[in-house]
Amino acid sequence: VKKYARAALIGTGMIGGSFARALKDAGIVERLVGADRSRTNLERARALGFVDETAGVAEAAGQAELVILAVPVRATLEVCEALAPVLAARPEVLVTDCGSTKVEVQRAVEAALPFPERFVGAHPIAGTEKSGPDAAQPQLFRGRRCLVTPALATRGDKVAECAALWQAVGAETKYMDPLAHDQALAYVSHLPHAAAFALAQAVGAVDAAGLSGGGFADTTRIAASDPVMWRDVFLANAGPVLAAIDKLEGALGELSRAIAAGDGAAIERLILRAHEGRAKILGNPR
Amino acid sequence: VKKYARAALIGTGMIGGSFARALKDAGIVERLVGADRSRTNLERARALGFVDETAGVAEAAGQAELVILAVPVRATLEVCEALAPVLAARPEVLVTDCGSTKVEVQRAVEAALPFPERFVGAHPIAGTEKSGPDAAQPQLFRGRRCLVTPALATRGDKVAECAALWQAVGAETKYMDPLAHDQALAYVSHLPHAAAFALAQAVGAVDAAGLSGGGFADTTRIAASDPVMWRDVFLANAGPVLAAIDKLEGALGELSRAIAAGDGAAIERLILRAHEGRAKILGNPR
Repeated sequence: VKKYARAALIGTGMIGGSFARALKDAGIVERLVGADRSRTNLERARALGFVDETAGVAEAAGQAELVILAVPVRATLEVCEALAPVLAARPEVLVTDCGSTKVEVQRAVEAALPFPERFVGAHPIAGTEKSGPDAAQPQLFRGRRCLVTPALATRGDKVAECAALWQAVGAETKYMDPLAHDQALAYVSHLPHAAAFALAQAVGAVDAAGLSGGGFADTTRIAASDPVMWRDVFLANAGPVLAAIDKLEGALGELSRAIAAGDGAAIERLILRAHEGRAKILGNPR
Repeated sequence: VKKYARAALIGTGMIGGSFARALKDAGIVERLVGADRSRTNLERARALGFVDETAGVAEAAGQAELVILAVPVRATLEVCEALAPVLAARPEVLVTDCGSTKVEVQRAVEAALPFPERFVGAHPIAGTEKSGPDAAQPQLFRGRRCLVTPALATRGDKVAECAALWQAVGAETKYMDPLAHDQALAYVSHLPHAAAFALAQAVGAVDAAGLSGGGFADTTRIAASDPVMWRDVFLANAGPVLAAIDKLEGALGELSRAIAAGDGAAIERLILRAHEGRAKILGNPR
C-alpha cells in the first residue's frame, strides 16, 4: 500500500476521525492536517492527537498527497471550490470522501474540482448514532463493508489507490455505480433513519416516559444521529428517499387496514413477509 | 414471599418459560405443570426441565395454587373457559398473566373465569425478538420493569401476591390501570413493532442484500418477533394501535414534505424533535 507523508482531513467528526486514526495506526499516513468548520471539533481532534496540525481547507490540502473529505454531503461543493486553487497544479493527488450519498457528491466534484477523474467516492457502511471527534475509533471499519463508487470518468489507478486505503483499515471493498448506490442506500440506510426519526417523534409526543423496553430503544437508536449530516443526506438523495418513504407508508397502510378489518391472517402474512425481508437484506437465508 | 407447592404454566414460550425458570430458581414454585397448544413446545419445555409434568389446560390447573397464563393474548378467553370448571371451587388460587395488552385480557377473564377478582394482569417489559421455550432465560426480568394492572374489582391481597412474584424474580413493579397501560404501550411497544414490520417489508422488497449496516439491523431487530403473538396484540389493542400508526404516518408525512420542499431547517427541527422524544421516553433528560 502506498504511504503518504502528508494527508488532509476535511471534517474531523466520527467517520473522518476514525478513518484518520486507522490510517495513522496502519502507518499509511504520517502527518495529518485537519480542517473543520467547527473550531471546537477541530481543536478536539488536535487534542485527541489524530490531527497533527490544524488549518483552513485550502491550506490543509496545500502540500497533501491525499485529501479526505468527511463533511456533511451538501458541503462538498463549497469544499471543492476552496480546494480548487491548491489542487489545480497537482493532478496526482487522490481526493476521496466518506459520504452517505454519492450522485450529488460526484456532481459537485465534477463541477468544482480540478481533474475530477482523480476523485473516488467511498462510503463505509459503519458508524453509530454518535458524532464528533470523540466518537472516532480506529477499529470502526474492521470487518465492515466499504462501497467504492467510481463514476464513468474516474481513473482506474485512483480507484485502486482508494480501495487499498479502505482495505488497509480492515474494510471489505465493493464497487458500485453512484446511482445504484444512492437508490439501494435510500432503502437500507436512509429509510431506517427516516423511520427512526419519525417513530421517536411520534412516541415522544405521548406521556410514557420509563415504560419502554428494548424494542423502542433499538428501533430508535439511530434517531439520535446528527441532524446536519442527515438533513444533507435526505436533501442530496431526495428522490430515492421520498420513494422509499412512500413504500414504508404503503406497508404501514397495509398493516393498518388489516388491523382495522380484524384480519388476523393478513397480519400474520405481513409479519412473515417482514421476517423474509429482514433475512434477505441481512444476507441470512432462512 | 409465599411459596407454591404446585403451579400451572399455560403457554411455555419465551416469557412463560423465563418466568417459570426464575420462580423455580428462586424456590417459590416447587412443582410446575405445563400446558401448551403446541405439543413441540410443551415437550421441549419438559426436556429443558422447567416443566415437571405436562397436561391439558384444565388438568394442569387441577391442583395448582398458582396459575400463570403466558399465551398469545387472544387465547385468554378460551383458556379461562377451560380453567373454569377446575377453579370454580378454589377462589383463593391466584391467576395471573404476562400479556402485552391488558383491557381485552381483563374482559376475557371477567367473562369466563370464576372469581375474576383473584386475577391480576401483569406485563413484564422484557423479552427479545426470539420465541419458544429455548429462548427462556431465568435472568430475563432482572432489573426490568413489570407493569401490574389491577382492574377495579381486583382483590388487593391478590395484587400484592402477584407483585411479590415479579419482585422475587428481580423486576421492579409498577401499577397501572389496564386502559392507561394499553394506550401507553400502543406507543412505546406496539408502534415500534408495527414500524419494524413495515420497514423490514419495505426494504426487503428491493435488491440490496448485504448492503445494510447496524442501522437497518437494529431498527428491524424486533421485526423477527413471533407472528401469532403480534397478530393478537394488534387485534386486541386495535384502537390505540391504529391511532399510534396514524401518528407515525403523520410524522413520516411531515418529514416527506420537508424533504420534497428542500426545507433543510424543517428537517433539522424534526430530527431534533426526535432526539428529544427519544430521550424523554428513555427517561434520560438531555
